Amino acid sequence: MMRRSFQVAARLGHRRALLRTPCILPGLDPAAAFGSSTDSLVSRFCPVKTDLKDYALPNASWCPDMLSLYQEFLEKTKSDGWVKLPSFKSNRDHIQGLKLPSGLVAASDKSDWRIFTRCIQVEGQGYEYVIFFHPFKKKSVCLFQPGPYLEGPPGFAHGGSLAAMMDETFSKTAYLAGEGLFTLNLNIRFKNLIPVGSLAVLNVQVEKIEDQKLYMSCITQSRDQETVYAKSSGVFLQWQLEEESSP
Amino acid sequence: MMRRSFQVAARLGHRRALLRTPCILPGLDPAAAFGSSTDSLVSRFCPVKTDLKDYALPNASWCPDMLSLYQEFLEKTKSDGWVKLPSFKSNRDHIQGLKLPSGLVAASDKSDWRIFTRCIQVEGQGYEYVIFFHPFKKKSVCLFQPGPYLEGPPGFAHGGSLAAMMDETFSKTAYLAGEGLFTLNLNIRFKNLIPVGSLAVLNVQVEKIEDQKLYMSCITQSRDQETVYAKSSGVFLQWQLEEESSP
Repeated sequence: MMRRSFQVAARLGHRRALLRTPCILPGLDPAAAFGSSTDSLVSRFCPVKTDLKDYALPNASWCPDMLSLYQEFLEKTKSDGWVKLPSFKSNRDHIQGLKLPSGLVAASDKSDWRIFTRCIQVEGQGYEYVIFFHPFKKKSVCLFQPGPYLEGPPGFAHGGSLAAMMDETFSKTAYLAGEGLFTLNLNIRFKNLIPVGSLAVLNVQVEKIEDQKLYMSCITQSRDQETVYAKSSGVFLQWQLEEESSP
Repeated sequence: MMRRSFQVAARLGHRRALLRTPCILPGLDPAAAFGSSTDSLVSRFCPVKTDLKDYALPNASWCPDMLSLYQEFLEKTKSDGWVKLPSFKSNRDHIQGLKLPSGLVAASDKSDWRIFTRCIQVEGQGYEYVIFFHPFKKKSVCLFQPGPYLEGPPGFAHGGSLAAMMDETFSKTAYLAGEGLFTLNLNIRFKNLIPVGSLAVLNVQVEKIEDQKLYMSCITQSRDQETVYAKSSGVFLQWQLEEESSP
């Protein structure tokens, strides 16, 4: 029963049909997306008071490089326009009170949903990361430390774990910078392997918004910028979430 | 101490320098890679007797679609040239007795290493998948069922979880079809979202081997092929692993 409703709900094809029409969906004007709406998206995304656990906080597993760069960016949140993004267990927490596009009915019969990049909750074993976002510059920096459960070649992070970290950083950036919601394209050129337990820094930049799409680039490198781990680009589709009506 | 050795070991840049030389590394002749060596790679990869747990076996969480397609492919292993690949906890188990390229010294001070796509061991919560490989046709089919810990948009698999599944299927295919070892490029066009708990089928094909690179394509779709979830391509660098010398 549940599975059938999944199948019906899964099609996003209809959005492509919508895009071919001359109709501009409400709230998707690029100027608006790059105007004050970014501030309101950020305000909603970063609640001052919440009972939800924020996983993007330092713990004992963080390596010295990660800790010190985190502190550096935390300083920049005070005066330089950077915002530290909280990271909850599920995107359900991030979009509380908002509706997904019609046709995408979220399944709700399982209690323990986790956003993929928070799938492993043992500190230091899986994903350790924190994302800082700059609303004005439309850029993000993600500090990423892969643990031993993210292994690919022995001792190094799986290429797929970096791909997922990129997709997640693109995703949060796209949403806050212009209501980008769905990944359309991800293109990664891998250059060097990331040692498990070390810090990789993802620098994401929104390059342009055109035809309801956000185009972003990312360079992932060591803290000293001497080693480039990967370069990538991502394209996201804009889609405005609506307020849920009160029960 | 460990971290420093990671940093020194992480550079793969030297392989690029090697590739620019006219020197052909032993065993990397494409004809050889596509000849009997594939059989020996498969034999080594699929040990008849092993104490290692194979995670690519049915369990109670598998949906009916996944179970029945698994049985279908299992039948094809008897007469149609398909091989069911075992899936161990770590790539360390898959390459037992082989050495990584010099400069890539595997860290070994942590006991619990897991290949990323086997990072969650609770049945049905994370990755459920099994890969079948056809040595002669140089193609693979991966049956993939994402669990609720792989969530992106509420109720659907994270784009990054599919990216990682593609990278892993490409990776095993590249290794067996022609000793492809390192992902150089991954390019994904997402079409539709995969509902959590449902089956997605990845069809991977080796397109060509040229200049020590394997070029592969992948189409991911529903079992009935009515819904295309994503199309992707991957490029892997060939690299021959050497036997470890006996202690």
